[in-house]
Amino acid sequence: MTNKKVIIDVNEPVLGRNDSIAADNRNQFEREKVLTVNVLSSPGSGKTAILERTLDDLRGKLRIGVIVGDLQTDNDARRLAGKEAPVYQINTNDICHLEANMIQRALKQFNLSGLDILFIENVGNLVCPSSFDLGEKLRVGILSVTEGEDKPLKYPTLFKTCDVVLVNKMDIADAVGFQDEVAICNIHAITPRAEIIKISARTGQGMDGWYDYLQARFSGK
Amino acid sequence: MTNKKVIIDVNEPVLGRNDSIAADNRNQFEREKVLTVNVLSSPGSGKTAILERTLDDLRGKLRIGVIVGDLQTDNDARRLAGKEAPVYQINTNDICHLEANMIQRALKQFNLSGLDILFIENVGNLVCPSSFDLGEKLRVGILSVTEGEDKPLKYPTLFKTCDVVLVNKMDIADAVGFQDEVAICNIHAITPRAEIIKISARTGQGMDGWYDYLQARFSGK
Repeated sequence: MTNKKVIIDVNEPVLGRNDSIAADNRNQFEREKVLTVNVLSSPGSGKTAILERTLDDLRGKLRIGVIVGDLQTDNDARRLAGKEAPVYQINTNDICHLEANMIQRALKQFNLSGLDILFIENVGNLVCPSSFDLGEKLRVGILSVTEGEDKPLKYPTLFKTCDVVLVNKMDIADAVGFQDEVAICNIHAITPRAEIIKISARTGQGMDGWYDYLQARFSGK
Repeated sequence: MTNKKVIIDVNEPVLGRNDSIAADNRNQFEREKVLTVNVLSSPGSGKTAILERTLDDLRGKLRIGVIVGDLQTDNDARRLAGKEAPVYQINTNDICHLEANMIQRALKQFNLSGLDILFIENVGNLVCPSSFDLGEKLRVGILSVTEGEDKPLKYPTLFKTCDVVLVNKMDIADAVGFQDEVAICNIHAITPRAEIIKISARTGQGMDGWYDYLQARFSGK
């Protein structure tokens, strides 16, 4: 066994390098007038389903690109293929979140001047992705009705950073006994400023509210 | 700004200290003949609901204790209170997983010689908890039908460490279009050795199979 040592300067913030690259990404998005949206949720909350429907419904209205992040597989990119939108899959190789340098590399695959909105579908994880700025303008959190009303209280680190929370799978809210007033109260306890939009990516319920929100934010309102 | 440096020996495994404490925990569990079960899943898959029903149904048959881990709140401990079982809540203060030293401290709250089974309900996270041995004998993964059949393929780091996978919320499998053959195939692709038990903590469907499994593992079969 060798006695190899590494010297680390503890004055450099752990997230400093990420923040610096995120700032570069953000400058690039602002220069190209692309609204970039970091989509965060637990696994299976419906991130990809929401993006599938959004790409279908906004085709011809807004020019959208998508970066999808997963530990493994390209399932999500394949689901989003064929919708006339550029889609790029990042495999994090078992890292539990996306980082700004992964986005920086992925951007080489996009012609940003041809986009209005770039969605970044993060790794499904209600904890770690919230600490990593990717350079986005907006953070969208998704809570599905099957996860329970208390999740915003139990995972505040993520929800408190969100600009908007989509409450998804409302079509099965009654079947699972979801109490939407309690969930909304809990979201607002953690992030009073966040907009809350109740939707179902499967039935389309409430999706117009989501599209209006996106359009308004893209227009700078 | 000072120019403070820290020297780190890269020959010491990052998880070395955790593994050492986990080994101490494991020795303690074996000495006291306690079957310790690390319960892992995404947020909202039903970890607490499964434990609630398990405590009710096995009362008088097996002596059970529970340690619950969450970033914040003591909601889960309160749900499990009043079931004649010792329950201890760990708040990780926004750390995304439990570590062996947290369990070591929590064990001071338990009389292990009075227990047959100790459940450790980990933080809801399909990625990070899998890297931290807590000293448990068994790992249980939970996949709920609302999360989608592909999650074992997308989160292999966790599922490949599981001895048994509970497929929960089977009572709403039809309502959400869950294809159980596909999910089972995906679980076995990642972890061929794992047992798979389909259950509903809400209706009780399949729970007897789970109890038989626990009883057999407690008896050392």
